[in-house]
Formats: sequence, structure tokens, C-alpha cells
Amino acid sequence: MIQAINHGNIRELRINRPPANALSPELIIDLRAAVENAAAGAESRAIVLSGMPGMFSAGLDVPHLLTQDRAAIAKLWREFYALLHRLACSPIPIAGAITGHAPAGGTVLLLFCDWRCMAEGNWKIGLNEVQVGLPVPPVILGALHRQVGARQAEWLATSGLLMSPQEGLRVGLIDEIAAFEKVIERTIEWCKQLLALPSRAMLATRAKARADLVALFAGSLESEIAAAAASWWTEETQAALRAMVERLAAKASRR
Amino acid sequence: MIQAINHGNIRELRINRPPANALSPELIIDLRAAVENAAAGAESRAIVLSGMPGMFSAGLDVPHLLTQDRAAIAKLWREFYALLHRLACSPIPIAGAITGHAPAGGTVLLLFCDWRCMAEGNWKIGLNEVQVGLPVPPVILGALHRQVGARQAEWLATSGLLMSPQEGLRVGLIDEIAAFEKVIERTIEWCKQLLALPSRAMLATRAKARADLVALFAGSLESEIAAAAASWWTEETQAALRAMVERLAAKASRR
Amino acid sequence: MIQAINHGNIRELRINRPPANALSPELIIDLRAAVENAAAGAESRAIVLSGMPGMFSAGLDVPHLLTQDRAAIAKLWREFYALLHRLACSPIPIAGAITGHAPAGGTVLLLFCDWRCMAEGNWKIGLNEVQVGLPVPPVILGALHRQVGARQAEWLATSGLLMSPQEGLRVGLIDEIAAFEKVIERTIEWCKQLLALPSRAMLATRAKARADLVALFAGSLESEIAAAAASWWTEETQAALRAMVERLAAKASRR
Repeated sequence: MIQAINHGNIRELRINRPPANALSPELIIDLRAAVENAAAGAESRAIVLSGMPGMFSAGLDVPHLLTQDRAAIAKLWREFYALLHRLACSPIPIAGAITGHAPAGGTVLLLFCDWRCMAEGNWKIGLNEVQVGLPVPPVILGALHRQVGARQAEWLATSGLLMSPQEGLRVGLIDEIAAFEKVIERTIEWCKQLLALPSRAMLATRAKARADLVALFAGSLESEIAAAAASWWTEETQAALRAMVERLAAKASRR
Repeated sequence: MIQAINHGNIRELRINRPPANALSPELIIDLRAAVENAAAGAESRAIVLSGMPGMFSAGLDVPHLLTQDRAAIAKLWREFYALLHRLACSPIPIAGAITGHAPAGGTVLLLFCDWRCMAEGNWKIGLNEVQVGLPVPPVILGALHRQVGARQAEWLATSGLLMSPQEGLRVGLIDEIAAFEKVIERTIEWCKQLLALPSRAMLATRAKARADLVALFAGSLESEIAAAAASWWTEETQAALRAMVERLAAKASRR
Repeated sequence: MIQAINHGNIRELRINRPPANALSPELIIDLRAAVENAAAGAESRAIVLSGMPGMFSAGLDVPHLLTQDRAAIAKLWREFYALLHRLACSPIPIAGAITGHAPAGGTVLLLFCDWRCMAEGNWKIGLNEVQVGLPVPPVILGALHRQVGARQAEWLATSGLLMSPQEGLRVGLIDEIAAFEKVIERTIEWCKQLLALPSRAMLATRAKARADLVALFAGSLESEIAAAAASWWTEETQAALRAMVERLAAKASRR
């Protein structure tokens, strides 16, 4: 589900789980392990997180998760938080190459990266969790606030808006737009520029500049994770998630 | 002074106190009550705060306040803070439809709303308190900082600049510009989009995203309110306020 | 090294140390004294910090500093922090007139000013410390974060990017661009507009709006200053600084 492709000392981790690169519990665990492994070895000095052409990641695998029990959903949220924490703490830079759609959980992963480049095209990005009945948890709101400022974080998260790459760039959800066929290449190039710098100075500055992102995970997040898991089981959320899955199924059967 | 107009489950609170929609002590108390009532009833699920065509609100009613004694001015500030606190804590969304000029206190009200749409035209917005000799109190600076970032909050508040809708949009004082005759309609539509979302998820996300705005009111604000009231009576402020009122009177008599 | 030029009640402090306006230990001490003196006297009510045509300041005087011992480098950092603290705490407004290049330490000085106007032209601005092997210290990162937001502060500092005036304006490193020959005049005019305001209100608002900048210096900065000084002596930093000085010397000899 995660392809590791080395470009010299830059390791691309390509999410590859057709059709939607949906974040299943297994994929979440695998991605965290892949991020850890890349940083643990000496051969990789930066990570590019990418997806399939046209689909970076559709976010949590809702159709699968709707078949799961409370214990599984609780575990899912714990693992998802552990992945976000791992991204935030990565000792080596991680840049996102947004190869297509990146709604909901797709956008969330990117908030914890160093830099984000999105492919030009009719792709969508944004925290549309509220649209499907999921409240946005505080750690994710904190990372959004840090990235786009309080004013924009408030209306982006509350309205659950999905945006074009151009709108995403304007509000600061992404940092650059590249031609569709060049997005991975451009993201690798960005990493190369970082790696050409005096390493100790770059990494020390990076660590201090990201300290506020890492600090979001300070203290116990147990009650926050429990609240996110509990939300899943409310009537409203279950109904909204099921309605979404039915819409997706109807759309797929019309094809 | 406050007209309540129901558009389905969205309640428009239209400030209607000719000629300038100036915030008198009574209007401030009435507006707070209207905001409370809208949220207390089950029929309204969002509020649109609007004004008269060409004048959202000119801010505090300085000509009236200059006739008042120390006790009345102290009460005014206490009531104004209570109104801002009420706006910040509103359990239902509040969007501002800026139907015309919105200097000083007009802008302040908007800082505590969820979203702001301003009418196209030759209207002014901005915290020009310093221009008329009033220091901007910390809670208002905190809300400004939160909305436009520290760099812009510093020079906007210190220089007391009034801006066009276009400039207001660029610095983040407002979120959108609409055609003059459409600004209330567009703001209602924005609320409708929020209300079409799963309600629990939207409101929970909104509450967390606004927690930093509400936190500005944590702890005792007694000394801050006392300082704002004391400022009113300094020689500089009295002179600047009286000069402004004379300019306004001269302008009015020339018409 | 610091020319003081009075324009009525606005004192221009012009850095004048050819060829690069490099910040030597003496210049740093002199500049702090000049800022203190301007604020101490009654005749000056605002400061314009400017440089030579084409060169605001190239930052720390690395060629000179590479000849210095540990005690001198430790003293340098202590004095540099004292200068930044003095700029942050200035009781009168300080605006930067960026007359040319302002890399590294040149940009740092500007982060602690009230407002920044940059000359149009092929000049560079940015925190390129990492490019020459110096980690950006926390107080400077804090001021950068405050000025341009966390997302941009992270990549600007980590990548050590130098930018054009247009890019600097876009990210918020500067506040305005003026014609090359008008940049000092425009900055003086900006100060005049502030000084035309009711003084007590303006200064009280300014002090509150800058409280977060001043707060960066709260508590002991001894360990932070010691860390900055220690960084200077690492192998990586020494090699990068020496390489830079050799490049500059080669460039100069080709002229």
C-alpha cells in the first residue's frame, strides 16, 4: 500500500491503494512505519509523500470503517493520531506532492508536512470533515490554525469547504502549484534544495520552527482521542457517513 | 433600534438608528439582548448582523457620550465588553452584512462575528480609534491580532487607518465583497450553507475553532474596562473627541 | 558608522559603514546607543532606520568575526540580542527604510521595527542564515513567526531563501515598496502620519500591539545566547562561513 521509491537520498513514499488511497487502519500503520524507517536509516535525508495520479488520498476509509466495531474505531483514531505525531516529529523534512484529490484526511496529512506542492487540475483539497458529520478534532484544528491563521482556520473547518489548488494556495493550505506531470519532480527538487544547505544549521532551524507543531501533541491526548472515537457513533455522524457511502456507491454504479 | 427580521431560521438583526447607527448605551444593551434572544429560541439557528444602506455602524455615539458623566462612561464600557463577549460566545453562527461604513466600533463588532461580507462601494472600514484619541483596548487588539495576524494588527491599530472594502479584504478585516444591493442576501446564503451541514459536527468544530476568541474574555477584565473608561477622561482624548464632533457638526450644517 | 539626520522631529539613523554596512561589534553597540539616544531626547518622536543606496545592511560582519576568539563571539551575540531588545522596546516608533540589500542580520533588524518600506530594484531580503551555516536563534524565529505566520516562518527560515522586494511584500517580510529614490522620504512620511495622531492614544495602542514582540525577551536569554555563540564554532558553520568569505573575496577581486 506504500511504495518506497528512492531518488538518491530522498525517499518518496507513494500511497498506492486503489481506487481512492483511502486511509484504512492498515495503511495508517504502514505509513507511520514507512516514515519511521525512512528517518531511521542513514540513506534517506528527506521524504516526499505522494499518491496516485489524480488521487493523493480521499481520507479515512469510511466504507470499511462503517463495518467496524467500537474497539476498532477507537484503535483507528489512536493510530491516526500516532501517524500525525510521527509526521510532526520527523527528524528529516517531509514534503507533500499532492498528485490529485486530497480531501479530509488527505489534507490532514499535509498539515503535518514541511511543505506542500499541488498538481494543477480539477482536484479538490480541504477539511470537509463537517460535511460528512465528523467534528474536526482539536489537534487538527491546531495544525490548521498554525498553517492558515485563526480567521481562515475558523471558516475553513466550520464550513467544511473543498477548494481548487488556486484557492488552496490563496488561503495557505498549500505552498505551490506545479504542472500535473511535474508535481513529484518539483517536490523532490524542493527537498534537494534543502539538503544542499549546511545540514546541522538547516535541521536545527527546522526543529525550532516546528516546535509549535510538535507541542500540539504535548500532554495526554487520551481524552481527545476518546472524544473523536465517540463522535463516530453519534446518530448524526453515522447517518451522514452512510449517506456519503451510498452516494459514492451510486456514482460508481452509474459509471 | 434593532429590527429583527426572520429569513426562515436565520434571524437578521438590523441596526436601525439614524443617522449613523451610532452605538448608544441603549443600543448596545438592546443588541446584546437581541443576540441572546435569537440564540435562546429554537426558531433561529444563525444570526445576520446588518445595518442601514450606506451605514453599518459609525461606532460609539460620541456626541451623546460627551454629555455623560464618569459613572455613565464606566457603565458604557462594561456594557460594550458584555456585548463583545456575547458575540464571541454565541452558540449559533453570526455573520456580518456590512451594508456601508463601519469605522471604529462598527469594525469592532465584526471582529467577534464568524464571517464578514462587505458591500461594494465607497465605504470605509477600520479601527480608527487612535485617530479620535482613544487607545484600542487589549481585548479588541487580541481579536484583531487573531483575525489579521500580529504584523497587520500592529500597524492597523496604531495608525488608525480606514480602508476601502478592497483593502479590508486584502488585510483580512473582511472575508468577501458583494454587490451593494446583494450584501444581506449573500450573507444569508452563507449562513444557509452552514446550516445545511450536519449540525452537531458543525457546531462542535465552530466552538473549538473560536475557543481562542472566547478565551480573550477569560479572567477578570475589570481593570481593563476601568482603564478604557479612564482613557475617556484624559485631556487628549476629550480634545480629540470634541474636535471630531465639531467636524461632524460643521459637515452636517454644510449639507 | 551611524549618521543621525534630523527631519524635524523624526530622526533618521543611517547605517554608513562601506562597503556592505556589515554589522561589526562596534556598529551594533553604536546603533543601540543611537536608538536609545533618539528616544531619550525630547526632540525626536520617531526613528527611521536606513542604509546606504543599494545596501541597507549585509548582516553580521563575518570576515571580521572569523578573526575573533570565543570571548569576542560570545560578546557579539550578547550585544546583538541587546540591540534587538532595544529595537523591540523602543518607546517611539521605528520604521525601516530598506535602501538596498538586506540579507540575514539586515532582515533581522527589520523584524523588530514597526513598519518596513523597501526600495524597488534588484535587491534581496531574507533570513539566509542557514545558507551560511548559522541556525536561526529562537528569538529571531519568534519575531519572524509573529510577522509572517508559522507556515511561512518555517520554510523561510529553514530554506534560508533570499527574495525580491515583490516576494518579500507577498510573504509579509516588508509592508510596502517605494521607488528607489523615494524610499527614505516615504518612510519619513509614514512616521509623520503616525506623529500627527493623538500621541497618548497612538503610543498606548502601539505598546499593547507590540507586547508579544517584547515578550520574546522575557526571562533569561543567557542559554539561548550561549547556544548561538556555541553554534559559531561548529565545524560546519566555520566551513560554511569561510567558504562564503572566500566567494565574496573572489567576486571582489574579479571586479
